[in-house]
Amino acid sequence: MSEKIQFVERQQLKEKPDPKDLGFGEHFTDYMLSFQYDADKGWHDLKIVPYGSIEISPAAQALHYGQAVFEGLKAYKHDGEVDLFRPSQNFKRINNSLERLEMPKVDEELLLEGLKQLVDVERDWVPEGDGQSLYIRPFVFATEGVLGVRPAKSYQMLIILSPSGNYYGGESLTPTKIYVEDEYVRAVRGGVGFAKVAGNYAASLKSQTNAAEEGYDQVLWLDGVERKYIEEVGSMNIFFVENGKIVTPELNGSILPGITRKTVIELAQKLGYEVETRHVSIDELFEAYDKGELTEVFGTGTAAVISPVGKLKYEDREIVINNNETGEITQKLYDNYVGIQSGKLDDPEGWRVVVPRYE
Amino acid sequence: MSEKIQFVERQQLKEKPDPKDLGFGEHFTDYMLSFQYDADKGWHDLKIVPYGSIEISPAAQALHYGQAVFEGLKAYKHDGEVDLFRPSQNFKRINNSLERLEMPKVDEELLLEGLKQLVDVERDWVPEGDGQSLYIRPFVFATEGVLGVRPAKSYQMLIILSPSGNYYGGESLTPTKIYVEDEYVRAVRGGVGFAKVAGNYAASLKSQTNAAEEGYDQVLWLDGVERKYIEEVGSMNIFFVENGKIVTPELNGSILPGITRKTVIELAQKLGYEVETRHVSIDELFEAYDKGELTEVFGTGTAAVISPVGKLKYEDREIVINNNETGEITQKLYDNYVGIQSGKLDDPEGWRVVVPRYE
Ligand SMILES: Cc1ncc(COP(=O)(O)O)c(C=O)c1O
Ligand SMILES: Cc1ncc(COP(=O)(O)O)c(C=O)c1O
Repeated sequence: MSEKIQFVERQQLKEKPDPKDLGFGEHFTDYMLSFQYDADKGWHDLKIVPYGSIEISPAAQALHYGQAVFEGLKAYKHDGEVDLFRPSQNFKRINNSLERLEMPKVDEELLLEGLKQLVDVERDWVPEGDGQSLYIRPFVFATEGVLGVRPAKSYQMLIILSPSGNYYGGESLTPTKIYVEDEYVRAVRGGVGFAKVAGNYAASLKSQTNAAEEGYDQVLWLDGVERKYIEEVGSMNIFFVENGKIVTPELNGSILPGITRKTVIELAQKLGYEVETRHVSIDELFEAYDKGELTEVFGTGTAAVISPVGKLKYEDREIVINNNETGEITQKLYDNYVGIQSGKLDDPEGWRVVVPRYE
Repeated sequence: MSEKIQFVERQQLKEKPDPKDLGFGEHFTDYMLSFQYDADKGWHDLKIVPYGSIEISPAAQALHYGQAVFEGLKAYKHDGEVDLFRPSQNFKRINNSLERLEMPKVDEELLLEGLKQLVDVERDWVPEGDGQSLYIRPFVFATEGVLGVRPAKSYQMLIILSPSGNYYGGESLTPTKIYVEDEYVRAVRGGVGFAKVAGNYAASLKSQTNAAEEGYDQVLWLDGVERKYIEEVGSMNIFFVENGKIVTPELNGSILPGITRKTVIELAQKLGYEVETRHVSIDELFEAYDKGELTEVFGTGTAAVISPVGKLKYEDREIVINNNETGEITQKLYDNYVGIQSGKLDDPEGWRVVVPRYE
C-alpha cells in the first residue's frame, strides 16, 4: 500500500446534515485534498486539509482568463464498505481537460491514491439512502496573480466532497422535459466542448434559464456549425432507442465524452443490445418519432445517472416519448447500472474500486 | 459631485515599482474597489479597500462553472491631471457580458463614480512615461459555494489597478507576426464570443502557445462555422488597408466589440478615410495582397492600442505586409489616437474623462 500523505487535522468536526435533506452539492465534508503547482517545483505538497475558504490573489488568472477544469464522480456505501465508481476514468479525463487549456497534467495514480485516503477519512460522510452518494469534485484552477493572457505559472488542485441526494431532486427515473436549443450554441469543433472546463458551463446558463422559463428541465444542444446534429444535454449525454437499437451521438470534439455514456454503452452491449454511435440529426429523430420508431430517450451522467426523457421540444413542436413513462430498455439499463454501483449486482468489469481502510 | 464612498485605509502603503520596469499587469496599487451582490440585497457595499488576497469558498461557482467577466481600460496622466479613456463604454460592455452569463448587471454610473474615486486615491500610481498608463481591470465573478449548474446567487465585483508599460514589451509600433489559426476555434455565433468572459481566453491559449512555438506573436481567428472569415486577434480587433480603404470585420456575435475598434473607426472617418465594416475572408485578403492592394494591417485593443502587423501566416504561406514596416495610415491613426489619450491633442469628442480631486 502506498505511503500515507500528510494529514492536517481540524479542531472540530462539522455537524452532518440530515440525510433526508441532502440536496446536491450543498454540503461539504470536514476535509479536502489539496495539491499545488508552480513552474519551479511542478506539482507538490499533496495533503489532506480541513475543508474551508481559500485565499487567492484578486488577479488570480482563473478569475480573469478562465483556466479552470473539473471532474465529478461518486462514492457509494454498501455492506459497510465504500466504493468509488471508475475513478481512473475521471483522472484520465481531467488530464485531457488540463491539456486543452495549457494547464499542467497531474499524476493520475497519485491522485487516485490521495482520493482514496481522503474518502477513507470521510467514510462516515458517505450516505447510504436510495439514490444517495458522496459526490466527489476534483478541480484545478490557475492562481498566478498576473494579468496577461498566457498560461499561468501556478495552480491549485482541490478535491472536495459533498454528500448528495438525487440530482434533479425527487425520485430517480422521473421523465424530464427537454428543450432543443436552436439559438444558442454550447461548443463547436476546434473549441473546448470535449473538455470539462469551467467556461462551457457559464456559456450554457442563458439557454438553460430560457428553457426553464418555458417549463423545461434541460437543454439539448445541437452542433454549432450546421445546427442540426444532436450533441448532448446540459450535464448528460443523450441516448435514443430507435427500432430497438440504442443510438447515441458519436464523440466529435464538441461533446463531452461522458463516463456514464461509455459505461452504458458497454453495459448495453453486454446485455445484448445493439449500440450505434454516429451522427444523429434532429430531423432524423422527429422522422423516427413520426414513424413510431423512436420508443425511448434517456440521458446519462454521473450526477443524474440515467434519466428518462419524457418530452422533447424543437421549434414549434413538442413530442411525448413513450407516453411520458420510463421505457423498458431505460429501466433495464438503470437497474443494472445502479445495481452495480450500489453493490447489489456483481461487478465483473471491476468498475467498483474499494476504498481501503488505512492503518 | 456624488457622495464619497466608504474608504478602508491600509496601514502601510506599498513601495512603488521602478517606472522603467513596469511590465504589464504585474504590479498592483494600494487599493481596490469592492462591490458585493447577493440575491436578497442586490448589489451593495461599494467601497475602497486595501488591495490584497480575497477569501472564497472552494465551491465558489466561478471556479467550477466559469461565471466570470472582466473589462480593461486605461488612465493616463498629463499636465498634472489623470484622465480615463471612454470609461462608460467599458461599463456598458461589462453589462452585456454579465447579461450573457446570467449574472446581475451593475449600475454603470455608480461604478464610474466609484472608479473615479479609486483612481483619485491612487493618482500617484499613474505612470507618466511614454506608452505607460494605469491599466484598470474591473471584473465580476460568482462566489456562491454550491455545486449546481445554474446562475449563482452571490457575486463579487472588484476593480484592481496596475501601473503598466507597453503591452507587447519593447517599443510601440514594432510590427508583430501573426499566425492565422486554421485548427482551433475561439468562438462561434450563438456562443459567447462577443462577451468579455473568462472562458474565451482559456480556450485561446493552446493556439497561442502553438503560434509562439512557431515564432509568431499572436493568433488571428477565423469564424467557427465556415473557417474562412476573419474575426479578430487574441486581444485585438483587426484592420486592413485595401486600396486605401480601411476595412475591418463587422461585429457578428462572435467578435468582441472593441472600444479601440469603435474609436479608431470614428477617428479614421474624421480624418477623412473611408471605413468599411463587413465580412472579410482570408482568401480575399491574400488575393488583395497578390494584387498589391493590401498595403497595411493593424490590430487595435486597449492594452496594445494600435499595433502594426508585419507578417501574416496562413497554411503554408507567409506574407510580409508593407515591407514589415509601420504603414502611413497606421502611423497616422496611432499618432492621433495616442495624441488624444495622452492629452497632446485636442479631444473634441470628450473621450477623456478627467478624474476629479475629491475633498
Ligand atoms: C456537458 C456534460 N455532458 C455530459 C456529462 C456526463 O458525463 P459523465 O457521465 O462523465 O458524468 C457531463 C457531466 O458530467 C457534462 O457536464
Ligand atoms: C478578444 C478581444 N478582442 C478585442 C479586444 C479589444 O477590445 P478593446 O479595444 O475594447 O480593448 C480585446 C481586448 O480588450 C479582446 O480581449
